[in-house]
Amino acid sequence: MSSHNLIHHDGSALYVSPHEANLGDAIQVRLRIPVELTPTRVAVRVVRDGEPVIHEAVPIDGPVGYGTDQWWSAEIILHNPRTSYRWNIAGGNVGYGWLTAQGWVDHDVSDASDFVVTSHNDIASWARNAVIYQIFPDRFAKSGRDYELPGWAVPKDWSDLPNGSYEHTSQEYFGGDLWGIIDRLDYLQELGVTALYLTPFFPARSVHRYDAASFHQVDPLLGGDDALIALSNAVHARGMKLIGDITLNHSGHHHEWFTGAQVADAPTRDFYTFDESLEHGYEAWFGVKSLPKLNYRSHELQQQLFAGPDSVIRRWLRPPFNLDGWRVDVANMSGRQRDVDLNKLVANLAREAVQAEGGDKILIGEHNHDAGPELDGDGWQGDMNYTAFRNPVVMWLADDEIINQTNPSYQEVPHGIIPRVTAEQMLAVIHSYSSRMPWRSYSASWNLLSSHDSPRFRSLVGGSHDRHVAGAVLMVGLPGTPMIFAGDEIGMQGRWGEDSRTTHPWDDKSEWDETLFDAYAKLHRIRADSHALTHGGIRYIHIESDAVVFIRESDQERLLICVARTAVSEIRINSKKFGIENIELLFGFSADQRDDEFVVSVPTAGGGIWRLR
Amino acid sequence: MSSHNLIHHDGSALYVSPHEANLGDAIQVRLRIPVELTPTRVAVRVVRDGEPVIHEAVPIDGPVGYGTDQWWSAEIILHNPRTSYRWNIAGGNVGYGWLTAQGWVDHDVSDASDFVVTSHNDIASWARNAVIYQIFPDRFAKSGRDYELPGWAVPKDWSDLPNGSYEHTSQEYFGGDLWGIIDRLDYLQELGVTALYLTPFFPARSVHRYDAASFHQVDPLLGGDDALIALSNAVHARGMKLIGDITLNHSGHHHEWFTGAQVADAPTRDFYTFDESLEHGYEAWFGVKSLPKLNYRSHELQQQLFAGPDSVIRRWLRPPFNLDGWRVDVANMSGRQRDVDLNKLVANLAREAVQAEGGDKILIGEHNHDAGPELDGDGWQGDMNYTAFRNPVVMWLADDEIINQTNPSYQEVPHGIIPRVTAEQMLAVIHSYSSRMPWRSYSASWNLLSSHDSPRFRSLVGGSHDRHVAGAVLMVGLPGTPMIFAGDEIGMQGRWGEDSRTTHPWDDKSEWDETLFDAYAKLHRIRADSHALTHGGIRYIHIESDAVVFIRESDQERLLICVARTAVSEIRINSKKFGIENIELLFGFSADQRDDEFVVSVPTAGGGIWRLR
Repeated sequence: MSSHNLIHHDGSALYVSPHEANLGDAIQVRLRIPVELTPTRVAVRVVRDGEPVIHEAVPIDGPVGYGTDQWWSAEIILHNPRTSYRWNIAGGNVGYGWLTAQGWVDHDVSDASDFVVTSHNDIASWARNAVIYQIFPDRFAKSGRDYELPGWAVPKDWSDLPNGSYEHTSQEYFGGDLWGIIDRLDYLQELGVTALYLTPFFPARSVHRYDAASFHQVDPLLGGDDALIALSNAVHARGMKLIGDITLNHSGHHHEWFTGAQVADAPTRDFYTFDESLEHGYEAWFGVKSLPKLNYRSHELQQQLFAGPDSVIRRWLRPPFNLDGWRVDVANMSGRQRDVDLNKLVANLAREAVQAEGGDKILIGEHNHDAGPELDGDGWQGDMNYTAFRNPVVMWLADDEIINQTNPSYQEVPHGIIPRVTAEQMLAVIHSYSSRMPWRSYSASWNLLSSHDSPRFRSLVGGSHDRHVAGAVLMVGLPGTPMIFAGDEIGMQGRWGEDSRTTHPWDDKSEWDETLFDAYAKLHRIRADSHALTHGGIRYIHIESDAVVFIRESDQERLLICVARTAVSEIRINSKKFGIENIELLFGFSADQRDDEFVVSVPTAGGGIWRLR
Repeated sequence: MSSHNLIHHDGSALYVSPHEANLGDAIQVRLRIPVELTPTRVAVRVVRDGEPVIHEAVPIDGPVGYGTDQWWSAEIILHNPRTSYRWNIAGGNVGYGWLTAQGWVDHDVSDASDFVVTSHNDIASWARNAVIYQIFPDRFAKSGRDYELPGWAVPKDWSDLPNGSYEHTSQEYFGGDLWGIIDRLDYLQELGVTALYLTPFFPARSVHRYDAASFHQVDPLLGGDDALIALSNAVHARGMKLIGDITLNHSGHHHEWFTGAQVADAPTRDFYTFDESLEHGYEAWFGVKSLPKLNYRSHELQQQLFAGPDSVIRRWLRPPFNLDGWRVDVANMSGRQRDVDLNKLVANLAREAVQAEGGDKILIGEHNHDAGPELDGDGWQGDMNYTAFRNPVVMWLADDEIINQTNPSYQEVPHGIIPRVTAEQMLAVIHSYSSRMPWRSYSASWNLLSSHDSPRFRSLVGGSHDRHVAGAVLMVGLPGTPMIFAGDEIGMQGRWGEDSRTTHPWDDKSEWDETLFDAYAKLHRIRADSHALTHGGIRYIHIESDAVVFIRESDQERLLICVARTAVSEIRINSKKFGIENIELLFGFSADQRDDEFVVSVPTAGGGIWRLR
């Protein structure tokens, strides 16, 4: 990498202190510059009430941390709740340019990629340290209890495959329940999971349950309120956490609010937008009849969901349920319809409601797109990171048979075609999207390889164990919180939504990739124990088309991580420049110290993690 | 330029139709692709209520317009008032990538640079065709009338130089007045000016008058209300327009609202933020005592400035004053103070007030920074374009003695140092900033080389007539409305704010660059008569470090423009590819058609403009 591309700052505590600050506080920001660049002028440009203000930086005497970089420091004021800034570096061997959260540029650019620091409080520390496990309750584990099936349910055996896309896709009932999850907590702890995220548990007309019929009870098919209370108690007894899933964008059309809203003067009438000119007579999410969109112009809806003391958001966070937070479905579209944009209000009210139940409760938005502008500190605390993690990682690691082939189930990419990218391009995508978020939000977002809404990662990498490991190392190694879609850890496959929602094959281990399970478990424990991974910054120090090397570091720990998508020639890293010594291998690839170089052997796709002391 | 960088779309009517559309309307968007790229898949990705949606594009049969490009077309829906979109292009010789308003990229990027179309109405057509002339009334022209000087005024002779920076900088009174402007309208029409923009005419304690003491009368020192009425009548009688300047961010501390607000229960008390913990006991702009900041949490302030039928904004747009619009001072900071951000509200209310007086009234914000996110259609209609025009043009054209030298008066750049850029970098800066605005706002913004707040452009180019011409060709040639700071047209110099505010030397033509005046006048007439310049799109077709060539084109006209900062070797353009034939030279450089090439001779800095038929 060029020296210019090693000029570094990020939002972690190594570079920004104090790391939590109040409005009006002074903040020290620091920059590291390769010693050969010898700049003569360094400054920080801060935007204050909409106007740029320049603060001169000064070199810091003596060494800071490891390696040979020269550090610079400046003081800025946290004048606005969301304060953006960037570095100007000039003179010496630098020439002239700017460092933004998107990297080095040799010309002026807009503020879109400025670093951002906020005055809003950080996510709960348990969430920063967490390994999240996503469970789609109908398909994960079955307690064996008998439930009276409603008319819409299409019963299936646990060993059946889902039928694919037809009118009952979302109604195929396999019988997983919350009691069943309790029976599998040993398994999850063995995997190193620390928090469960359940897709919706509210009663609905499908087992997907994104068409809630009520926000006030647990679906009896999952065991009802008692099962959730028991699960919550069991989870918490093990020191784990439990996260719910709520649709703030819409309800089901069988929701008690909606069925009660059919007459003009109904108290919940304005929770929805009735309009005879629309196809179904009301605003429905993407025109889907079963999903009437919630209308946040209604003050009473705001009260019932958020603001009231017994609001939906708040009551489930309290005893006896004690959820530890919410994941919000289609957060990006909630409150938005045509010329009405109350998305920010929805996010703010949801955050206030969550925080009213205590600082250890969390709020994560689903945003399968460019979430940056919405992650500015006072709404969602992080997102399900599709754009700045999952999509670019898939483009880099996917199998040739997936890449450049039309696949109608990949509706999120034009023509259903996933393009191939190099590691340089993967990182450019990651930086383009992540630079739009405050570091605090980026690092609190969920790194996922798969979800209940996506093809399984294992299928995207053509079944390759080694590439799956490479993806898993990125999942724990890049900033963000790992989120595992249940079953990914044993290499389950699935090429489209429902195909990815097959049941967990507890009784048939023939297709389990148990070596992968062990790798996941090891990676999860490395992350749980690593201050660098949970709180540290990230510096990319070597990038080639097929491999990337980066350092995660905090004031307490440094890790060096290498990920590759195929075998590559030895990767040689300058030991002195990067302060690489006293190395301990934690995972994967082998490496040697040779003279002044740290030499990584990459015999196959996968990854390596070393602790530097 | 590479073929990829010639893939083109912009927001002009050639590529977007209908060009004005209402919410919910279908819009055709079109793309042109060099024929050698042979893509097999083209799509448009639109963001709808926060979620991306893909629309397939189809090739358009047969030729469209000039040149050999293959055109594609797609239909999108204007679902939100600000709808963003980008093009995906793949297959054939293209590979894979996206076209955003920032250009071609071979990997996914955030939405920050998406094209944007809005449902908000366009700026008045006179403004699209205008040549704006900025007048700082105290320094432009003196009628000879006698005025009783207030105590603060420091009288100076017309031939004196301002004293530079001291405590009375803003109070040096040279005696220009509005009657004086009336006497110079012949001069302005000879120059091809079609609209005057006056810096503030409200009474104040300075001749800068950004410290208004009232918003309800014209300063008697300028001739009072009668002079403004007479000026307005005289201007309109010539078919010209008149634009005022208002500080929505602050008033002066002698403003009637502020002096009346000193007791706790005063009716205007909450127009300001009184707070004993602040230095002056109230919120002042950047802590400047004489400029108390307006507090938009006050509903009554909103009424008095905007919403009431006799509001400040509205009354001056009506008879007998008949202003044609407002330029808003520090629009970027108005309504913003620490944890309060009502900037959007201020812009919306101001726009509503302006439009309430008729669709031919305009609203332009001053934003010396990254205005894009605030130019989204329902507030300011354009800005004074420092970031996407003036700054990069100065970085490209400034003299070596200005570049890379510390100049304390350039507070807007770190260390007061203006960096040198190539033409490639200049355009990268322009695209980085302009891509953040809807085309409608970008093309309605004011292209300025100097203003009353800046060094004079002539001084920045080291006095060079030729480079000044190069700048002027960019000013009329790039999208946007030319705005000339009075005196620039005769090559007046000035190295910092007050030094640029010397009086117009009507009686001493020894230092006039009369050839430049003629060039300006010619360029203004070319622009006024050119549908391509006032309404057309822009395609860059040749870029080298010292020169740039672009085509401005509408469905009615095409112009080819070349600008250079120094002599360069002949520039050769493929005539067939770009449809260059039947050329008419309108300005500057000479050129030949040789075989299949259009060959431009560039013997010096400057520019050339040709009409293509």
